[in-house]
Amino acid sequence: MKALVVCSGGLDSVTLAYKVAKEGSLSSLLSFDYGQRHNKEIDFAARCAKQLNTPHIVIDLSQVGSQLTGSALTDDIDIPDGHYAEESMKVTVVPNRNAIMMTIAFGLATSQKADAVAMAVHGGDHFIYPDCRPEFIEAFATMQNFALEGLNETSNSNNNIELYTPYLHKDKTEIARDSAKYNVPVADTWSCYKGQDQHCGRCGTCVERREAFHLAGLKDPTEYADTEYWQTVVSGAHE
Amino acid sequence: MKALVVCSGGLDSVTLAYKVAKEGSLSSLLSFDYGQRHNKEIDFAARCAKQLNTPHIVIDLSQVGSQLTGSALTDDIDIPDGHYAEESMKVTVVPNRNAIMMTIAFGLATSQKADAVAMAVHGGDHFIYPDCRPEFIEAFATMQNFALEGLNETSNSNNNIELYTPYLHKDKTEIARDSAKYNVPVADTWSCYKGQDQHCGRCGTCVERREAFHLAGLKDPTEYADTEYWQTVVSGAHE
Repeated sequence: MKALVVCSGGLDSVTLAYKVAKEGSLSSLLSFDYGQRHNKEIDFAARCAKQLNTPHIVIDLSQVGSQLTGSALTDDIDIPDGHYAEESMKVTVVPNRNAIMMTIAFGLATSQKADAVAMAVHGGDHFIYPDCRPEFIEAFATMQNFALEGLNETSNSNNNIELYTPYLHKDKTEIARDSAKYNVPVADTWSCYKGQDQHCGRCGTCVERREAFHLAGLKDPTEYADTEYWQTVVSGAHE
Repeated sequence: MKALVVCSGGLDSVTLAYKVAKEGSLSSLLSFDYGQRHNKEIDFAARCAKQLNTPHIVIDLSQVGSQLTGSALTDDIDIPDGHYAEESMKVTVVPNRNAIMMTIAFGLATSQKADAVAMAVHGGDHFIYPDCRPEFIEAFATMQNFALEGLNETSNSNNNIELYTPYLHKDKTEIARDSAKYNVPVADTWSCYKGQDQHCGRCGTCVERREAFHLAGLKDPTEYADTEYWQTVVSGAHE
């Protein structure tokens, strides 16, 4: 398998890139600037590409992002503290974000003659992001098969592209375990939605990240501004 | 119905915009600059938006287009002369173009609280563009339903968006007829792939346009550089 990996620079997609590099090969890493306030994550995707010696492509979708209103990731809305399982986290949904990123990824994959597009969607995302659910992923793959059918008969590209989502039915704890298995430099990944100097330790993705290492029985090398908050939230969510 | 219309500035999508304006209302027209050599078409979409008194949004995808290699519309490959039904026309396919444009359209439609995204794909496109076929359109609509499911419960947007493709099972002749029915200013639309001062009269889309008005029994007000070529190609294709 030669895969284009959609890579945000976060723990999940960087671990996926290492997994793909081990199992097969990379055609490139693909990142998107959609105006997210934590776009510093893209620098971490660039580091990953350098470490894995593969091209890094950054697509500027900030113009599109500015039109996708209503998300705390792109608009002037506070990022909520707490656990992903909470209703309040729905304000972090960017409408149709994954579908947009994935169609561009499939377009680029045809030109790169990749066999697969790899996405790090995982089971823990399903609560709040409709475009991370298995139903969506399956329907997307079907749509792409029709969209590219017959193309490589005449053009200098590949139309037979798999959507590779090995974490779709797994949770972030398994991704944390894989990060150890594939020797991922975890401190060189960025999750926090607030995009400040340090991981805040309070937003949904910080809490989830810290919890995942805890549940995996692994040390989390990340430096959090608030090191205690996650425990109070996680115990609340699990009550 | 309040629809966002994906509008290239060509005869088909401008006619569709007039049809939607008559049947319901427009939330906006959406055009894309993907590095097509005939991006002057976007000016014609702008004229249409002005005529119909609706916002015109132009998304710059030229960076994406530069990565989608192998198409005569974006690369340094000659635009072929002839009829769309010919094999040679496959070099005008831009891989995954429609899927990319449509996912962005659906994202914007949620923010605009539109009920529908309207696309002017039509039966005559099926020969060469896999992402214009009914199978693709149906799979795309299914994918979008999953991608947006549940979003409007909490966010300031609409997730119940129809994909409106009234020309999917019709041909360009019927679009030409509709252009007369809805009083479309046909001379204010642009089809030619070569993007020069005048419509060339020789490329696939010029030939198809001229043929459609002929078959509809309507006068074509378009000024073509070559006014005769289409007849020789059409008679050949129909033999």
